[in-house]
Amino acid sequence: MFLCRLRTDAGTVAAVRLDDETLLDLSPIAGDDLVALLQDRGVDGLGAAVAALAASSSAVRVPVASARFDVPVPRPQKIVCVALNYVAHAEEGAQAVPTEPVIFFKPPSSLLPHGETVRNPARSSRLDFEVELAVVIGARARDVAVDGWRDIVLGYTVLNDMTARDLQLVAIEKNQPWDHSKGFDTFAPCGPYLVTADEIADPGSLDLSLTVDGVVRQSSNTRHMVFGVPELISVISAGMTLEPGDIIATGTPSGIGKVEDGGTMVATVEGVGSLVNTAAYERSVVGAPA
Amino acid sequence: MFLCRLRTDAGTVAAVRLDDETLLDLSPIAGDDLVALLQDRGVDGLGAAVAALAASSSAVRVPVASARFDVPVPRPQKIVCVALNYVAHAEEGAQAVPTEPVIFFKPPSSLLPHGETVRNPARSSRLDFEVELAVVIGARARDVAVDGWRDIVLGYTVLNDMTARDLQLVAIEKNQPWDHSKGFDTFAPCGPYLVTADEIADPGSLDLSLTVDGVVRQSSNTRHMVFGVPELISVISAGMTLEPGDIIATGTPSGIGKVEDGGTMVATVEGVGSLVNTAAYERSVVGAPA
Repeated sequence: MFLCRLRTDAGTVAAVRLDDETLLDLSPIAGDDLVALLQDRGVDGLGAAVAALAASSSAVRVPVASARFDVPVPRPQKIVCVALNYVAHAEEGAQAVPTEPVIFFKPPSSLLPHGETVRNPARSSRLDFEVELAVVIGARARDVAVDGWRDIVLGYTVLNDMTARDLQLVAIEKNQPWDHSKGFDTFAPCGPYLVTADEIADPGSLDLSLTVDGVVRQSSNTRHMVFGVPELISVISAGMTLEPGDIIATGTPSGIGKVEDGGTMVATVEGVGSLVNTAAYERSVVGAPA
Repeated sequence: MFLCRLRTDAGTVAAVRLDDETLLDLSPIAGDDLVALLQDRGVDGLGAAVAALAASSSAVRVPVASARFDVPVPRPQKIVCVALNYVAHAEEGAQAVPTEPVIFFKPPSSLLPHGETVRNPARSSRLDFEVELAVVIGARARDVAVDGWRDIVLGYTVLNDMTARDLQLVAIEKNQPWDHSKGFDTFAPCGPYLVTADEIADPGSLDLSLTVDGVVRQSSNTRHMVFGVPELISVISAGMTLEPGDIIATGTPSGIGKVEDGGTMVATVEGVGSLVNTAAYERSVVGAPA
């Protein structure tokens, strides 16, 4: 099931994709919290309710082309990002391939819906894209065994780990944390769909790519991850509790680069969706350091 | 006003300190969300309501000594930490004194109440303390000017930025993010009080210290910060929206060091409170990497 959240004149509503062109507004049967919705009804229960709603006279269909998406999970407790998780990407950054997962955090304030504009703050002059498969957690869990990962995965989405690369490189040169360069508002475009876990037989064999203005800039497959989803969930949850709605962004393949002002990025993960966002470079920010 | 949250048999309640020995249970007049409470009533309004409650026959007083504290802000959208913000601390780590604030994030899952035990995961053998003045944000804000900082500060608390130092040093050596070493469950002891902003005339002139088993290990004053609270709020909010309840931990002074298994830490900030926690070293963790 491909679930999403839509912004409508009546507020934010949950919706489900019926086919490539059509969404079904779920507001007659549910609130807009997709995590709670799946926890309450399960995929099978929700599927039956969707079928009944789709057949009823009160069904409201929304064309995908005119839908205004919101992020599928608006307030995760945390967004855990995995760095250097593709060999070719670690090498292109002249960094060592990790011997265990390297993580950092993006703040929930950085989330941005599909279709919206990423805004690079004036203090940066290089905004980079990074397509990633993102895992959405469905259960409170800690110390998950490698073979227990499926029990806590609610589904998947696409996340573009936007980075003010010039600021990150300054931090790396000084051997300081780089969180700031990846934590600005709009720096975590995410969506358009929360794809339920049953739709993805193996998150370790999905093509993923990113284009800018139609030109392919990143193209790989999740099989090239250094650490796959099962290992990531096990290591990340070791000593750190994951909460329903938490997001794990599993790292980006090689090919990262700058998106120019006005450039349109399409970040695609096979079977999960295509996330489209345009870039804008801000000219000045009140309160920013000189 | 010194507000706190208490765990009682009837659930978590808000309370206020009447004197050094006595807390007043606020559950007859309010829920346990201290941020909402202050936003709804303001300090003056809440003060009047507290006075009326204290004089009434339904007042329930709780001795500080027997109170079970919960964290004052249980679910911030983010915890922003400032690294290397005291010159002597940067020097003791052989790191450059920053020319602008260096930030990283701790996940809300790492929060721990006053009185509870910090648990160092088995993968680490060196758990370090770091006393910090923490600012609690009271308003949604972005791009705050340096002289506008007071408008968004709800109050202050104490945060002990617990760190698996051995893991952090490995990350620093590899020039990788160190978030993991500071993000485990229980690694952000915080409290016991949310002290309202009116109680602190100047957050830039407060003594702060940390003792382990009665021995002073850290002792400084917030005047030695490289960047004070006004500058921190301005730079951190530049391009990154702060939300009510967000926490900014303003950095630790020199003297950081290891707390041994069973050691009791008292982290004190003048006028804000003393945060007491004991350390424990875990022997094994299911799912942890070998």
